[in-house]
Amino acid sequence: MERLIAGAMSGTSADGVDVAIVRVAGRGTDMTVQLIAHHHHPYDARLRETIFSMRGGEPVHLTDLARCTRQVSLAYAAAVNGALAAAGIGAFDLAAVAAHGQTMFHAPQDTMQVLDPALVAAEVGCPVVSDFRRADCAAGGQGAPLVPFADYVLFRHPTRSRALINIGGIANVTFLPAGALLNDVVAFDTGPGNCVSDWLCRTRGPFGLSWDVDGAGASRGRVIPEVRDRFLSAPYFSAAPPKSTDAPAMIAAFAHAVAEAHHDLNDLLATAAYLTASTIATAVAVRVGGEKHLELIVSGGGLKNKAMMGWLKSLLPDGATIRPSSDLTVPAEAKEAVAFALLAAASLDGAPSNVPSATGARRPVVLGSITPKP
Amino acid sequence: MERLIAGAMSGTSADGVDVAIVRVAGRGTDMTVQLIAHHHHPYDARLRETIFSMRGGEPVHLTDLARCTRQVSLAYAAAVNGALAAAGIGAFDLAAVAAHGQTMFHAPQDTMQVLDPALVAAEVGCPVVSDFRRADCAAGGQGAPLVPFADYVLFRHPTRSRALINIGGIANVTFLPAGALLNDVVAFDTGPGNCVSDWLCRTRGPFGLSWDVDGAGASRGRVIPEVRDRFLSAPYFSAAPPKSTDAPAMIAAFAHAVAEAHHDLNDLLATAAYLTASTIATAVAVRVGGEKHLELIVSGGGLKNKAMMGWLKSLLPDGATIRPSSDLTVPAEAKEAVAFALLAAASLDGAPSNVPSATGARRPVVLGSITPKP
Repeated sequence: MERLIAGAMSGTSADGVDVAIVRVAGRGTDMTVQLIAHHHHPYDARLRETIFSMRGGEPVHLTDLARCTRQVSLAYAAAVNGALAAAGIGAFDLAAVAAHGQTMFHAPQDTMQVLDPALVAAEVGCPVVSDFRRADCAAGGQGAPLVPFADYVLFRHPTRSRALINIGGIANVTFLPAGALLNDVVAFDTGPGNCVSDWLCRTRGPFGLSWDVDGAGASRGRVIPEVRDRFLSAPYFSAAPPKSTDAPAMIAAFAHAVAEAHHDLNDLLATAAYLTASTIATAVAVRVGGEKHLELIVSGGGLKNKAMMGWLKSLLPDGATIRPSSDLTVPAEAKEAVAFALLAAASLDGAPSNVPSATGARRPVVLGSITPKP
Repeated sequence: MERLIAGAMSGTSADGVDVAIVRVAGRGTDMTVQLIAHHHHPYDARLRETIFSMRGGEPVHLTDLARCTRQVSLAYAAAVNGALAAAGIGAFDLAAVAAHGQTMFHAPQDTMQVLDPALVAAEVGCPVVSDFRRADCAAGGQGAPLVPFADYVLFRHPTRSRALINIGGIANVTFLPAGALLNDVVAFDTGPGNCVSDWLCRTRGPFGLSWDVDGAGASRGRVIPEVRDRFLSAPYFSAAPPKSTDAPAMIAAFAHAVAEAHHDLNDLLATAAYLTASTIATAVAVRVGGEKHLELIVSGGGLKNKAMMGWLKSLLPDGATIRPSSDLTVPAEAKEAVAFALLAAASLDGAPSNVPSATGARRPVVLGSITPKP
């Protein structure tokens, strides 16, 4: 049984929607995937600003929330339609769009993704699977991380132990011991990905700079020891998994660590990049004890931050090696979108696709809601 | 093909959740329905207060919106589980719960119902169909009214012209000409149902009075002519259908009509009840021209307001007669819940169930999102 699914994902960095059109064969954890096309559709600057302001924790008018939901949905539809056009595929051939929606906040067992799946279904012209996180929360889980299911499907290996690292707004890790069963998977958010660096650029950078391109600023700066130490003393980093966090929480922890002191922007960017690398490396080190060799497969925008990747390499324990996920046929920037396409395939099959050992849920559950073709 | 569906509905009056467990046979507009059980589960006073305050138009914290969504969902689940227990039916026998959700606001082509369908699915243990209004909005409709589909299925008659009137928070009418096709159905919100009366009790009544029981206050009061006239000059009442409104808009129009003047509460209640009756009667009169006889089938809490029903009878044109919907095998207070059960049956069948002539949508579409059994 083969079907085409368009996975569509916008992360906490709120830079836009990544779409991966994939051909999925098989069922459950035995699915295989072929990536047909990847397409990125940026949010316009105003939508991005609206999302950040709504996530800031201030009260919002429900009419504004509804308008934002509509704009996010139209961006998702435009992204999928762009991917279909680029790939020369008609909506009629899609079994479904897997639409993650835009996270407005995330707390343990409480999470809000905004999206109007009926609007996406109408604008694209095919069924939509959405709202993947609620069913896991309803089963007592954190609703995150959900990508470990796809990591297991795509990257498990009979004789190699692997750790999948995605560095988006938040960074997360999935450990796949050699020959693992789904229940052996351990996965959690390690802490900040690019969200602190992006926030520094948004709020302190010169006009027009919306992220630290290639980590140039971080490469010129120096790590500020007292900010680093204060940040790492936040309770999140000593908590045992399963655990998940979100960008506003990590940004708040960093702002708290900086306190009132004035620092050079490049030094702050260096510190932020260092902290992402350091919290990933610590998570790997805690885990790597029993493993002779651990292959780190890295994806996400953080791969492009040279300072961040340099620190990650230097901080990793012996026996750990780094590969970009594109080496294993899934381009780094498409991985999360591919993951949600797989989750949607499971939803359509009525197969569970949360990983209770990663989310803390009481049991495996079928994720998502299915909105039919209009 | 027969299936059991639990329709669950909470209206703009936010008094709680009505559940109708129905056996549905057939497909599309040829479905037939047998009501197995009806059950009302009241919201607790605090949830009701939260809903009213969120609907007031003030900005809300998204965490509060999420908490309210959770409480609404648990109330829906408790309502369905209560109905199942009362009927001696197991969740396993249900094909689905049809859950309307709690409307937080409604504007033309924009509407927000809060509900976590995955939580309801988990707490009840069966699939949930929800978010019925979005697909109609995505097709250019108002997302309301949706009940006309069920009115057509349940009440159309080859030789009698009928008008279905539901007096909930808002009052609406569905005209079913004798021998009508689905496209001949005209339906719209006539204006206030009980929402203005309820609002008066909530905000001006003595402690403990949350609605005007049996219309006792209205029966003791006298209609205030200047409030009546100012209210009826609101543009909504002269607009042509399709049109829909919501409780906050009607309450605001009444508050505007009262202006700063001080009036006796009973006189205000009388005026509110009169205005509900008058706007219904006017809508019927405009329409009744071509009909020799028109049978009005009335449902909803307004049936219990004796003053309101008295005025309705006295204001109706000749040739119109009134029957409570319970006369036609669907108890008045269960009608909306039965309607959503029918809409869910259509969704499960992949059959369209909006009525474009009622909502203004460009085309018939399949409504709702389906959340699988967890």
